[in-house]
Amino acid sequence: MNSPVSVAVIGASGYSGGELLRLLAVRTDVSVVYATAQEFAGRAVGEVHPDLAGVLDLRFESYTPEGRAPVDVAFLALPPGQAMQLVPQVRRWADRIIDLSGDFRLRSADVYAQYYGHTHAAPELLADAVYGLPEISRDAIRTSRFIANPGCYPTAAVLALAPALQEGLVDPGSLVVNALSGVSGAGRSKAVELSFSEVNENVRAYKVGMHQHTPEIESVLERVTGRSVRVSFVPHLLPITRGIHATVLGELTADVPEGDIRDLYRRFYRTSPFVRIREGLPQLQSVTRTNFCDIGLVVDRRTHRLILLSVIDNLLKGAAGQAVQNMNLLCGFPETRGLPGGRPEPVPLFPTSQEILA
Amino acid sequence: MNSPVSVAVIGASGYSGGELLRLLAVRTDVSVVYATAQEFAGRAVGEVHPDLAGVLDLRFESYTPEGRAPVDVAFLALPPGQAMQLVPQVRRWADRIIDLSGDFRLRSADVYAQYYGHTHAAPELLADAVYGLPEISRDAIRTSRFIANPGCYPTAAVLALAPALQEGLVDPGSLVVNALSGVSGAGRSKAVELSFSEVNENVRAYKVGMHQHTPEIESVLERVTGRSVRVSFVPHLLPITRGIHATVLGELTADVPEGDIRDLYRRFYRTSPFVRIREGLPQLQSVTRTNFCDIGLVVDRRTHRLILLSVIDNLLKGAAGQAVQNMNLLCGFPETRGLPGGRPEPVPLFPTSQEILA
Amino acid sequence: MNSPVSVAVIGASGYSGGELLRLLAVRTDVSVVYATAQEFAGRAVGEVHPDLAGVLDLRFESYTPEGRAPVDVAFLALPPGQAMQLVPQVRRWADRIIDLSGDFRLRSADVYAQYYGHTHAAPELLADAVYGLPEISRDAIRTSRFIANPGCYPTAAVLALAPALQEGLVDPGSLVVNALSGVSGAGRSKAVELSFSEVNENVRAYKVGMHQHTPEIESVLERVTGRSVRVSFVPHLLPITRGIHATVLGELTADVPEGDIRDLYRRFYRTSPFVRIREGLPQLQSVTRTNFCDIGLVVDRRTHRLILLSVIDNLLKGAAGQAVQNMNLLCGFPETRGLPGGRPEPVPLFPTSQEILA
Amino acid sequence: MNSPVSVAVIGASGYSGGELLRLLAVRTDVSVVYATAQEFAGRAVGEVHPDLAGVLDLRFESYTPEGRAPVDVAFLALPPGQAMQLVPQVRRWADRIIDLSGDFRLRSADVYAQYYGHTHAAPELLADAVYGLPEISRDAIRTSRFIANPGCYPTAAVLALAPALQEGLVDPGSLVVNALSGVSGAGRSKAVELSFSEVNENVRAYKVGMHQHTPEIESVLERVTGRSVRVSFVPHLLPITRGIHATVLGELTADVPEGDIRDLYRRFYRTSPFVRIREGLPQLQSVTRTNFCDIGLVVDRRTHRLILLSVIDNLLKGAAGQAVQNMNLLCGFPETRGLPGGRPEPVPLFPTSQEILA
Repeated sequence: MNSPVSVAVIGASGYSGGELLRLLAVRTDVSVVYATAQEFAGRAVGEVHPDLAGVLDLRFESYTPEGRAPVDVAFLALPPGQAMQLVPQVRRWADRIIDLSGDFRLRSADVYAQYYGHTHAAPELLADAVYGLPEISRDAIRTSRFIANPGCYPTAAVLALAPALQEGLVDPGSLVVNALSGVSGAGRSKAVELSFSEVNENVRAYKVGMHQHTPEIESVLERVTGRSVRVSFVPHLLPITRGIHATVLGELTADVPEGDIRDLYRRFYRTSPFVRIREGLPQLQSVTRTNFCDIGLVVDRRTHRLILLSVIDNLLKGAAGQAVQNMNLLCGFPETRGLPGGRPEPVPLFPTSQEILA
Repeated sequence: MNSPVSVAVIGASGYSGGELLRLLAVRTDVSVVYATAQEFAGRAVGEVHPDLAGVLDLRFESYTPEGRAPVDVAFLALPPGQAMQLVPQVRRWADRIIDLSGDFRLRSADVYAQYYGHTHAAPELLADAVYGLPEISRDAIRTSRFIANPGCYPTAAVLALAPALQEGLVDPGSLVVNALSGVSGAGRSKAVELSFSEVNENVRAYKVGMHQHTPEIESVLERVTGRSVRVSFVPHLLPITRGIHATVLGELTADVPEGDIRDLYRRFYRTSPFVRIREGLPQLQSVTRTNFCDIGLVVDRRTHRLILLSVIDNLLKGAAGQAVQNMNLLCGFPETRGLPGGRPEPVPLFPTSQEILA
Repeated sequence: MNSPVSVAVIGASGYSGGELLRLLAVRTDVSVVYATAQEFAGRAVGEVHPDLAGVLDLRFESYTPEGRAPVDVAFLALPPGQAMQLVPQVRRWADRIIDLSGDFRLRSADVYAQYYGHTHAAPELLADAVYGLPEISRDAIRTSRFIANPGCYPTAAVLALAPALQEGLVDPGSLVVNALSGVSGAGRSKAVELSFSEVNENVRAYKVGMHQHTPEIESVLERVTGRSVRVSFVPHLLPITRGIHATVLGELTADVPEGDIRDLYRRFYRTSPFVRIREGLPQLQSVTRTNFCDIGLVVDRRTHRLILLSVIDNLLKGAAGQAVQNMNLLCGFPETRGLPGGRPEPVPLFPTSQEILA
Repeated sequence: MNSPVSVAVIGASGYSGGELLRLLAVRTDVSVVYATAQEFAGRAVGEVHPDLAGVLDLRFESYTPEGRAPVDVAFLALPPGQAMQLVPQVRRWADRIIDLSGDFRLRSADVYAQYYGHTHAAPELLADAVYGLPEISRDAIRTSRFIANPGCYPTAAVLALAPALQEGLVDPGSLVVNALSGVSGAGRSKAVELSFSEVNENVRAYKVGMHQHTPEIESVLERVTGRSVRVSFVPHLLPITRGIHATVLGELTADVPEGDIRDLYRRFYRTSPFVRIREGLPQLQSVTRTNFCDIGLVVDRRTHRLILLSVIDNLLKGAAGQAVQNMNLLCGFPETRGLPGGRPEPVPLFPTSQEILA
């Protein structure tokens, strides 16, 4: 394969869209041919994302479904409720779709309506989408044409819980997920409550008991474990720009030494290059600006609970990084290519002629 | 009473000590006669706490027990393990003692040794100390001569849990306390891991399952409720200077409407001027630089849990503010006097002559 | 005077308005009888400024000029261009007016139009307003009925420069003011560029060479010195909530030792309780949440320049604190009353009966 | 050239050292064979820089000069005053040296002693070092064996001033540099004044008129322009982790339109891939985590000054990024290789067999 993969980014002026452009711009095996942003149509990418000036020479366009040249992959990085309107059209000109929104992550249109507050516009497509968490369903992703890219909180929570639940180590009805998010998770939007003066030196929980990521966490874990899962999910907004820190508690079903559980986790993720099981407690800074998910764990003997700590960068492993990881799988590239934290590929920069000619 | 109360602050160069000086300096009914700081002995208070230049004209001294003139109240704001060395001496020259450290908050010297990592130096005094949480034991405080001022995390957690536990609304064996703290809680100390570059844009849990505030929370709640209490306590360090945000979950023992629980909380705290039961979710900014504790609550029907959110300023309601609130009670002053967030006292600035002459 | 001064706050939902309410709520000699906020009319103050719940029991109203009961003092804390519309009406029901906006700080309607970008609506009132910087014109303020409360940048810059310029120590044509501002200076408004993610870990200069505080700084200094003043003013937005740090440079006209200049500054401000001339370099934290202006100075022999560093809290000394300082002067109260950083008044809390009966 | 360049990093546990490892770890044309850190000898790199766990498998060693295998390039990232002790030894086993400290940036041992406060230990080597600012002396760097990597402030200030001074547009005796720095510039050190609580919501100037970067800025500009240069340099510490924002003012020598000056700057830097002349005012976020220097400029007609705004990431273009840029030049790699912000190299990932066989 000598010609680069052609990609479109629909909704490229927000934080996830910008991060996608940042990751894709420096690749020689990918070519961004189309980036849309209604509000900034006609403007250079480098005006809207000033760090990309001189890095990506492209102008934002308005989205139009008509007369589009086909692309290999279309990323959709739109506000909630818009992707479900566009996917049927985008399918006509994009060979594969990776949707970063929550529109296609749930299988039930009823649950969607309950948590998102509006009816689903394309319920018939819900079953088509593969939930794009490579560590859980790498094989299904490789052969899919339509990926629902996971939410930031669910990525952190599911990666923390999947091994313990699958192994039956914790009671799936006992789970508590306390999660802390940076502000970029709320998107590049204007709102008094997101302004610096309101967020700085402040912390607040929000949408307690009603956040739309609750059914996403539960349903994905139910598919992993085959059992009913119940989670008390409490998200909080923190004065940081990037990152998710999830603190997850579950009641242990047996007395298992902490070291054994850590070993189990390492085995579970031994083929997953972006998950690191840390010896001690993880911290956000270790994963910020990378595609890693770091997980630490503590057995609290007194209360007979397993306490899991899980950290990701919400814009990378929690959004654009994971989307590129999915693209790599879809396109047959090495899974870690072009992702911060990925090791250098074991390919010599200058291959020998035999390798080329082979 | 016309002459001001004389007070000493032992350990006045740290954040809690500085906050005490800040609160006491502007009072006309209190006179700070003695402030110690080994490292800064001989230096003006305004050099060490530069905002106090021109506000409090005093020089730090070294602490010496010999030949001290008696004072009405001595505050001890020392690093862990020092107060238990000094209290026996301080009792000789101070009529009342308010200790801001953890040295006298537990009743058991064994539990102290287990969580603090060293033997208690004055176990015979443990029973003398009254745990100084006015909202829980106001009457005992008024008549005490020795106050163990509560920890910041326990203040937030106990105020959140006491009404529900006392009323039997939540299972005392099911509790989870996820708490988030500003950096000033770690004291004014030099450490790479507290430096700005390490804390900014970072979050990390610490001392999971082994924090010394765990037995403090449990034992205080046990005294309140008369039942055995078990808490999974997970503290986290956040990139904010001041504040504690506690997210507390417990399993409901009965189906009680959210509004009824809120009413119960309001009744419980109706005589406590510094506790506000909010209609929605509280946020840290509402209490920063005040002595308030704001509490919000949500009934999560799906998981049958009560979720409590509780916020305080760790240096005020979590330390120096609470210490002054205790001093007000000890000295017969109005409880809210001189405390940010306290309402103006219903005393005319210029009393009528009858009031004076009476 | 036994009954409290009655005040109105027009535009009380923003940061300056909220800070005014915070300062006024705890005073027993002032009564807030009327607070307006178009967007929040009918809502309790404690919903909009949640820290004031339980501190100030008042509901926001819409502003209406008709049938208003007279008040002693009206504060106007409105966005640019609104006060000049209202002042003629407010004069009918308010004995004295303190306007926190820039509408009446310049004497020339032409310069106003040039820098504010619209015509002045009440040019005939420009000459009536007294520029309310107490350290410069305390006597004029005391007898005035209409105060133009200074801007935050001009407060920091003018207090730094006035003594040196008045004494002829620096060339008034050589001045450079580099100023750094917290985000609350931009008001409580929704804008992508003020959102946390855009401001955090960022710095940017803005309105370079065209900021409306440039002519304010120059014209006030010209009135002080009687000479023509030229300032290159470069404001920057920082990731802090509160505070102004001004770095001011001017060419020295003579070789004067640093200590002599510091003495001169101390003499200049010897009757000004809120200005502190520091021995070393000032820092913002020393004045945040206080009404102080701290000034430091360095003589740079190599470049023959005087370098002045000046810090204030933009919402207190740069806005609401200064407005209350002005109110204190207008009403005959002690200048420092009710202002953080003010020393306790040398009045016994319980006056003797002689004082009362006198 | 098929085998990778071998490099050593002496002093790799600090922020600049860590950033070097981060940049070098993902390159296939470079191999880090030796990384030292006295305090962490024997510890895995991923324990000290936790984001590098799983990215760079290497253990820190103690530095010993004896019996070292030769390396192609040695980076020295040590605290001030240590490199001048080591360079004579390192020369014996390293073919080329890039020193990130200030030890070899000045040509005069006297000026060094005056600003650094101690005598220079290897004055005879001062003339050997090439000042490694590629935009100014790319050709000299290519052929050098010993690079003095520029300071963070001088990089920002010199890149802003060089074109205007070289062209004679501003008076070299009139310069003011106000610079703002993130905290990582102070290194990974423990100090109360660098702790989060002391830096957050704070700003302070430091070393006013005596900072060691003053003679570095002046002497480099003097070499560029051949004229005597005088700078008032005022550095400030900000509550951000990374970044330098320099605001530079100089008196214009002639009336030149702003657009002409911008054109001049673009011509000056047309072969420099990491300098971007922005149309409007630059902001720090556009360059953070990149190797770019963004420059904006305003002609202030009123005061007849040119105002330049210049931003860099202090750990990249201001330290480790620039060091790698220098290594690229020394080793004959493309200048931008492996540097964030560098465009993808116009080399196909899979070269055709002809290219290989050629």
